[in-house]
Amino acid sequence: MKECFDFLLEIDQLKKVIRRTYISDGSRHENTAEHSWHVAMMAMPLWERYEHKEEVDLFKSIKMLLLHDIVEIDAGDTYAFDEEGYKDKIQREKLAADRLYGLLPKGIKDDYRKTWEEYEEAQSPEATFAHIIDHIQPLMLNIATSGVSWKEHGIRSQQVLKRNEWIQELSPSIYRQIQAWVDTGKDNGWLKP
Amino acid sequence: MKECFDFLLEIDQLKKVIRRTYISDGSRHENTAEHSWHVAMMAMPLWERYEHKEEVDLFKSIKMLLLHDIVEIDAGDTYAFDEEGYKDKIQREKLAADRLYGLLPKGIKDDYRKTWEEYEEAQSPEATFAHIIDHIQPLMLNIATSGVSWKEHGIRSQQVLKRNEWIQELSPSIYRQIQAWVDTGKDNGWLKP
Repeated sequence: MKECFDFLLEIDQLKKVIRRTYISDGSRHENTAEHSWHVAMMAMPLWERYEHKEEVDLFKSIKMLLLHDIVEIDAGDTYAFDEEGYKDKIQREKLAADRLYGLLPKGIKDDYRKTWEEYEEAQSPEATFAHIIDHIQPLMLNIATSGVSWKEHGIRSQQVLKRNEWIQELSPSIYRQIQAWVDTGKDNGWLKP
Repeated sequence: MKECFDFLLEIDQLKKVIRRTYISDGSRHENTAEHSWHVAMMAMPLWERYEHKEEVDLFKSIKMLLLHDIVEIDAGDTYAFDEEGYKDKIQREKLAADRLYGLLPKGIKDDYRKTWEEYEEAQSPEATFAHIIDHIQPLMLNIATSGVSWKEHGIRSQQVLKRNEWIQELSPSIYRQIQAWVDTGKDNGWLKP
């Protein structure tokens, strides 16, 4: 029990990891703990509409979404369009996973580590669905905030489409929403052409 | 799908609902969205150690914990020791649930509303477990922050014990942790005797 509480207190630091995205009223950046809650919440109703829901154990996807960014406590948040940061992202995050999941008792540690690795590999139906959710949450917030984060980083519409094009085949309905958001971003000049 | 996204954007406001508890480094108050993530995370390893785990569908408890405070967007956070605020808490939160869950498509709306009501009734094994987690998370953060929130509100050790005594029979192991935290709070003068 003590090891569990050591881990559960340590992960409180995720509330201090700041993302590039702004919360919906634009008043401040989002932190990774509240982002993790938001994606877990998004997974629930969107799973109901997901074209491959029969293949997805929703609880497993939600567990992944709750856990997936804990490594950012040590490794920091890597912005979706930061090509430089992505070069050593895996290495930084593996070290973080060693330390953070290492706080837990053995059986639980192995389970969470495996769950996180499955998410990172992005192959299983649950991991794929979780990645879809993690990709669209910042798009939704960018639209709500008149693209403030896109504008700050000079993002082009083609970058957003390219990052998300793999979703088209898996979920035409979600991809239509992505396209609609990108169109809104372009039409308003929040995204570069 | 549109109704789902309307709801999922609306609940972003939970990131602006401020609780009395401070995050673990004491630098600021916690908001309810990150609190909801933290309790969902706490439920996972503590369920493994919970004396009644066989009776608890962990996913159901986690769903409750993710959803349980969304009503605070309209109703505000009611502090655990605020007797005045508790008088109309149910009424305020029911109106909030009508509006917020009302944004969702019918089937999903009914499911979430029922899940939230089951949490509030605190009778089912899943709701009971979720309430245990929701009760101990602020205790853990109070200890981490030298009882800053307890001191600000002049909380007595007997108030904390009384609020949590129902946990003793359900989970002796978790209750021992609560007692240890209360002892620490008393010994350091963070809780009044």
